[in-house]
Amino acid sequence: MKAIVKVTLRKGVLDPQGKAIESALHHLGFDEVGNVHQGKFIEIEVPEGTSEDRIKEMCQKLLANPVTEDFEVVMTA
Amino acid sequence: MKAIVKVTLRKGVLDPQGKAIESALHHLGFDEVGNVHQGKFIEIEVPEGTSEDRIKEMCQKLLANPVTEDFEVVMTA
Repeated sequence: MKAIVKVTLRKGVLDPQGKAIESALHHLGFDEVGNVHQGKFIEIEVPEGTSEDRIKEMCQKLLANPVTEDFEVVMTA
Repeated sequence: MKAIVKVTLRKGVLDPQGKAIESALHHLGFDEVGNVHQGKFIEIEVPEGTSEDRIKEMCQKLLANPVTEDFEVVMTA
């Protein structure tokens, strides 16, 4: 099975990559574009029956920076 | 409304970030972890009624590198 971890910047943390994309889209003529945010996701292959808590432990220890980032875990078949 | 663009590396393209995470997880004792892949996602605020094709145009022009990356667009309320 796979666990998908979605890591986003916490509210209030500056998102320079998102801002850069927003301004590049405007320059390319996509004027209708509003706020843009960028984040990352990590797909992890784990054995059947792995608990969500185990994945959260990985997030806390390695995958997300608790000061600046939030994470969300989704388990898929 | 929001468009979410998920950008992943094409099959066959080396994913050094994924490999680094995989090996770091093993070192931390998460021995059950198999393959790991990393990708990014971009959330774009767009006006109601924006078509998926418009977002795909943004992907082709800016958001994804057509040589190394695939993308997927999801429109949400």
